[in-house]
Amino acid sequence: MDLDVLVEGVRQGRPRAVARLITLVENGSPVLREISAELVRLCAARPERARIIGLTGSPGVGKSTSTAMLVRTFRERGRKVGVLAVDPSSPFTGGALLGDRVRMQDHATDSGVFIRSMASRGHLGGLSWAAPQALRVLEAAGCEVILVETVGVGQAEVDIASLADSTIVLLAPGMGDGVQAAKAGILEIADVFVVNKADRDGTQATIRELRNMLALVERAWRPPIVPTVAYRGEGGGDVADALDAHLAHLEESGELERRRRARARDEIEAVALAALRSRFAHLHGDRRLDALAVRVLAAELDPYAAADELLASLG
Amino acid sequence: MDLDVLVEGVRQGRPRAVARLITLVENGSPVLREISAELVRLCAARPERARIIGLTGSPGVGKSTSTAMLVRTFRERGRKVGVLAVDPSSPFTGGALLGDRVRMQDHATDSGVFIRSMASRGHLGGLSWAAPQALRVLEAAGCEVILVETVGVGQAEVDIASLADSTIVLLAPGMGDGVQAAKAGILEIADVFVVNKADRDGTQATIRELRNMLALVERAWRPPIVPTVAYRGEGGGDVADALDAHLAHLEESGELERRRRARARDEIEAVALAALRSRFAHLHGDRRLDALAVRVLAAELDPYAAADELLASLG
Repeated sequence: MDLDVLVEGVRQGRPRAVARLITLVENGSPVLREISAELVRLCAARPERARIIGLTGSPGVGKSTSTAMLVRTFRERGRKVGVLAVDPSSPFTGGALLGDRVRMQDHATDSGVFIRSMASRGHLGGLSWAAPQALRVLEAAGCEVILVETVGVGQAEVDIASLADSTIVLLAPGMGDGVQAAKAGILEIADVFVVNKADRDGTQATIRELRNMLALVERAWRPPIVPTVAYRGEGGGDVADALDAHLAHLEESGELERRRRARARDEIEAVALAALRSRFAHLHGDRRLDALAVRVLAAELDPYAAADELLASLG
Repeated sequence: MDLDVLVEGVRQGRPRAVARLITLVENGSPVLREISAELVRLCAARPERARIIGLTGSPGVGKSTSTAMLVRTFRERGRKVGVLAVDPSSPFTGGALLGDRVRMQDHATDSGVFIRSMASRGHLGGLSWAAPQALRVLEAAGCEVILVETVGVGQAEVDIASLADSTIVLLAPGMGDGVQAAKAGILEIADVFVVNKADRDGTQATIRELRNMLALVERAWRPPIVPTVAYRGEGGGDVADALDAHLAHLEESGELERRRRARARDEIEAVALAALRSRFAHLHGDRRLDALAVRVLAAELDPYAAADELLASLG
């Protein structure tokens, strides 16, 4: 593989080069180390940094349709758009490909859109390691807006929120009551609420309930609540406007710089920990760790003592 | 705090000592290192190892009610039961407490049940670090069956599945179609499917759809599908029987030992990585990492070079 050709392809925004490089990220390829500096430079050379927008919600609220609608909206506003669909069902394949196929149909012929699914492999720092690097590839390819879509409510969402400048939480009428929403922590991560399927019964009740919950929280930014009917393309402009307002707030308050710096810190730490992990593996294969595990199970060692032995063996 | 008194309280199964110690786990307390060996010994001294059962599903399928039903079933079968409700909305508080309050009502006066919610703080290995230690506390306190409940479909579920001997995936009729289920990877993690709210329309269709999807997968263990109506207590015995059958399969196939060993390996690795992380923090505070982040944002450094600098500074 000629890495220079690959990076040049990314710089020119060639879809196959972008896809190839994100596959290398997904697989945790060690060659990324060799091109990371060049990707950082390509991003810095763009007139402005890419804007990262997280989009999350439970299964069935219409994430794929909403993403497609927002892609259209941002394209109409003249922006190059990237979509990274992070599949938190991590070690498994299949789902990611399906999602790609469904979403690609709309935008397959538009050279201003990159759409890519990514599984987050492994579970120690998998997403923390891979997602920032995939975002950097899309930014290096010229994407000005990058939508990061993820399914479910849980740790992956919190991680996604920490990757994004702005996070959209998608809801739909009748998808579960307020207690469930609060439980999942979505109030804390949402910068914009979108109530999709707003042609259905219960939309006003959902909006009212959200508004009441938001009234209980004191925050510098009060997340707007935007109704949409994504499958008919209704409300895309309103969502984009709400995102613009949030971006302006982030810039004025200095929060944008703070968020981006926190992201860079997280990424450095994730890369460092991944490097240490692979050093374990190189030094000992699985055998040494396995021997320690057997001793912990037999109550001969506790996990702290086992971890000390593992670390000591790193030299 | 007298650690010996605390550990002795856990050994005697005193609820306040158990709660106290799990709070220390939740907060990542460094004192755990001092008592870890003793906890390991307490667990090994029990006549048999605790059986860990994961329970997961989307919001609204009835996880809390199902957990309460299973607690009753296992209590009726004479087992001491622990419940660990892992709240994947990690850095946030509130949800966990609410869950506790709801669930405690049923079993508050039963000394054979420990119920505890836990947030998984941080996002690099947070759950991988904390959950095994919390499970060890419950096992040391004499729990013979431990239910680990978590909300959502995503990375947290996959992590929970890797913690458990058997994983229950809860569904309810009409909660989303098969494509969504496959996307979330639940087919791969489920050892037992429970279709709750089986008094509702669509139950047979959901069971049929699951059965068709399962027929496509070749596995040594075909997950049974058990209908329940948890709020009326219907089907708890069937679920427990299905879990017993799965446990027997795990024992016969040698898979139980393999799963437990993999868990011990994961825990040792998580403890080791957490130790390294705190070494970073002790050596440099956040300042050094922050300085590296600023240079990455300015494109003076790439994240790999920054990670190398960070690791080199560990000496």
